[in-house]
Amino acid sequence: MIKKILILVLVFGVSAFAKAQNDSIQIRKIYDEALKNGHSYEWLDYLSTHIGSRLSGSLGAEQAVDWTKEQLDSIGLDKVWLQPVMVPKWIRGVPEYAFIETGIGETTKVPICALGGSIATPGGYVKAPVIEVQSVEEIEQLGAAKVGGKIVFFNRPMQADVIDTFKAYGGCVDQRYSGAEAAARYGAVGVIVRSVTHSLDDYPHTGSMSYGDLTPAQRIPAAAISTNGAELLSTLLKLNPATKFFFSMGCKNLPDVQSYNVIGEITGSEFPDRYMVVGGHLDSWDLGDGSHDDGAGIVQSMEVLRIMKSINYKPKHSIRVVLFMNEENGLRGGREYAEVARNKKEKHVFALESDAGGFTPRGFSFDSDDRNYNEILSWKPLFEPYFIHLFTRGGSGADIGPLKGDGTVLAGLRPDSQRYFDHHHAANDTFDAVNKRELELGAAAMTSLIYMMDNYIQKPGKLMTLPVKE
Amino acid sequence: MIKKILILVLVFGVSAFAKAQNDSIQIRKIYDEALKNGHSYEWLDYLSTHIGSRLSGSLGAEQAVDWTKEQLDSIGLDKVWLQPVMVPKWIRGVPEYAFIETGIGETTKVPICALGGSIATPGGYVKAPVIEVQSVEEIEQLGAAKVGGKIVFFNRPMQADVIDTFKAYGGCVDQRYSGAEAAARYGAVGVIVRSVTHSLDDYPHTGSMSYGDLTPAQRIPAAAISTNGAELLSTLLKLNPATKFFFSMGCKNLPDVQSYNVIGEITGSEFPDRYMVVGGHLDSWDLGDGSHDDGAGIVQSMEVLRIMKSINYKPKHSIRVVLFMNEENGLRGGREYAEVARNKKEKHVFALESDAGGFTPRGFSFDSDDRNYNEILSWKPLFEPYFIHLFTRGGSGADIGPLKGDGTVLAGLRPDSQRYFDHHHAANDTFDAVNKRELELGAAAMTSLIYMMDNYIQKPGKLMTLPVKE
Repeated sequence: MIKKILILVLVFGVSAFAKAQNDSIQIRKIYDEALKNGHSYEWLDYLSTHIGSRLSGSLGAEQAVDWTKEQLDSIGLDKVWLQPVMVPKWIRGVPEYAFIETGIGETTKVPICALGGSIATPGGYVKAPVIEVQSVEEIEQLGAAKVGGKIVFFNRPMQADVIDTFKAYGGCVDQRYSGAEAAARYGAVGVIVRSVTHSLDDYPHTGSMSYGDLTPAQRIPAAAISTNGAELLSTLLKLNPATKFFFSMGCKNLPDVQSYNVIGEITGSEFPDRYMVVGGHLDSWDLGDGSHDDGAGIVQSMEVLRIMKSINYKPKHSIRVVLFMNEENGLRGGREYAEVARNKKEKHVFALESDAGGFTPRGFSFDSDDRNYNEILSWKPLFEPYFIHLFTRGGSGADIGPLKGDGTVLAGLRPDSQRYFDHHHAANDTFDAVNKRELELGAAAMTSLIYMMDNYIQKPGKLMTLPVKE
Repeated sequence: MIKKILILVLVFGVSAFAKAQNDSIQIRKIYDEALKNGHSYEWLDYLSTHIGSRLSGSLGAEQAVDWTKEQLDSIGLDKVWLQPVMVPKWIRGVPEYAFIETGIGETTKVPICALGGSIATPGGYVKAPVIEVQSVEEIEQLGAAKVGGKIVFFNRPMQADVIDTFKAYGGCVDQRYSGAEAAARYGAVGVIVRSVTHSLDDYPHTGSMSYGDLTPAQRIPAAAISTNGAELLSTLLKLNPATKFFFSMGCKNLPDVQSYNVIGEITGSEFPDRYMVVGGHLDSWDLGDGSHDDGAGIVQSMEVLRIMKSINYKPKHSIRVVLFMNEENGLRGGREYAEVARNKKEKHVFALESDAGGFTPRGFSFDSDDRNYNEILSWKPLFEPYFIHLFTRGGSGADIGPLKGDGTVLAGLRPDSQRYFDHHHAANDTFDAVNKRELELGAAAMTSLIYMMDNYIQKPGKLMTLPVKE
């Protein structure tokens, strides 16, 4: 009996070892291809430098749809198509202009930008006294008596002592998203929000905002101010509380327009009707060229399928690259993709998003049940030689979020986050801020994870035990 | 008996838990101070932008000695002093000039720079046919018949598929260091070396080289060529093997000059005669301002002691910050420090160097025996909340290397390495390439490691068991 067990253990052990060794060889192949023959950097150069910013409904977004489809057509996938989706169209219009007016009549120009979705300044401009607050709740405490007729200046900074900058971002982005709605309810005439970045510089950072259920007549214009501008305004307000702020914005919301998700597929050899998605979002804000947010995720996702073709890996499941439209100000692409999938009863077993910048990948966050997560954790030894150390529970990505349910495992690439918010939604989110190797390492890590999922997902929502020995 | 054991386990467990919790609180304090009140970035701005490059024996190096001593004087250490050390003095002289001359008489200018230690081009310039090789060994195979009278062009690139760029660097830097010596032995008249960087760009990267035991008359001039220049030269040589290369360099070796290591100390409260060193090198190459190499290591090391003072941590051991002179072309500072320590019988229990750039810290490499390394590994849970995942065996730093022996534990900070060689020893190693938070996180990680060593080194060369529970 003992002999029998020993034999079983030995046989199982050897087979498990061989399997893990094979995975290790495949992952090495993936990295070699990404680092020696990678296309992602060249693709990003075109997307960023030739096409440029890609706000939903803009010419850039349309060009990006056409060009990425062309690129996917060229890499020999089984299917490439456009999935129609109606998207909001907001335009910035004439450049914004703002200055601080001190009590003694001096004016100092400061850099601002309209928040995405804001209305224009009524009648051309707004000039009013300023009330500085640290939070949305503070407005409620101050009430209409102190807020009415004022420009509300939200100045709570990102916390420097929070190590994960996405957490620090989450800790203050409510000012940008909900500040105008709250301030308008108490009679404010405009809102200025400190840019959500750690860096002290002159770039205003845009981003989405919402008026909630305010009627058009109740809405007030909202802008981001650069962090240096915010520091200056705060100082001048301390010196003279009667300091006024002037700003002028010509932005506008237009009717929805037609746009598309761009989708490419390698059809699975064993489970063609089970899908794995890898993607990012094709739209970007309009100030920079959207290289980190999310040009990087787009070209990395395209690169995942190109690498598979190039190393002649034939996935068991159908692998789709989905370039989602309109993450930034609507999430229409992500919602549409999930709805179509549900209507067609397409079973999605895994989805991976890259939407946290093109920096050195540190790992992945997983949105899954305990059992699957524990299985995935056992893969770490295969990733650590590539400096992928971080496997954590958490969110995945906004675009793939609507796929949640039915046991679909979701994951997000976690690049190093320290520089991300220096560039996020600002004019300096540009190609020169992306490093070729860092971008390529991200694509390789993503491809490796898709490879592992393809091999160890036994049935939807349930991973096979991985026979890796540490 | 069982009851007794249970009690012991419980007591020990509770005490261990309390200790680990206290460490966790101390490390949090260290990070808060580094990220909220850090001085390292401001210091680096001065060192890089006001003082600039600091090649041994230069005015910049002298100014850096004076200024860093002043800064250390200002943070309330117990002792600050200069340790005299004689250093080599090599100067670049007039700017280098080079072009490729194709067979049809056309010339194309290409960016080069003299390698540190090279002689000038004799008689003003060298013009000769070129032989392209991939390695030092290839010269030996080719022999004098094919190498004599030629300029040897070493063109082996850094391997893109090696994930740790320091390993890739190690895999081809022999061409730069020993290429001229080997080529001279076979009658070559000059050496051109492909810059040791992954990036394809126009920056030539300098670095140290050696003529070994060649007599002055045997020596030949050696330069680095930018990677774009190397690609061009290689292409033109394929089109026309008779292509010639022209280069002119006015560099010069001068007699040794007086310089200094800058040292500051917080004297230990329990073991004042046991020393821990944290340092980097104060000298830099002359092309950029040496922000990453190694301005970052300098200001981070200074910051370690400033943080300790600022959070009112009183170390048990004497902690020294040592700003070593002349790492780049001589290592005189590191050797002198170790020799003085040996002569004074100063017992060094730990030394930590930061000399791999100011990028996001990933972890540390440790040069120690197995037992100590295993103890250190048990500290990982304290560091992982700060995204410090990499504890590995390996080298520490060139400057602290001479302290090796007698059980001194050596360690090196391991920042993310992907961008480092884009800037290393080139004109673009400048302040703007350093990110404030990444630099500060490095300083915090270093301070935390010194804190742990201070608390768990029981006696020289032997760490206490750490009571951390995962």
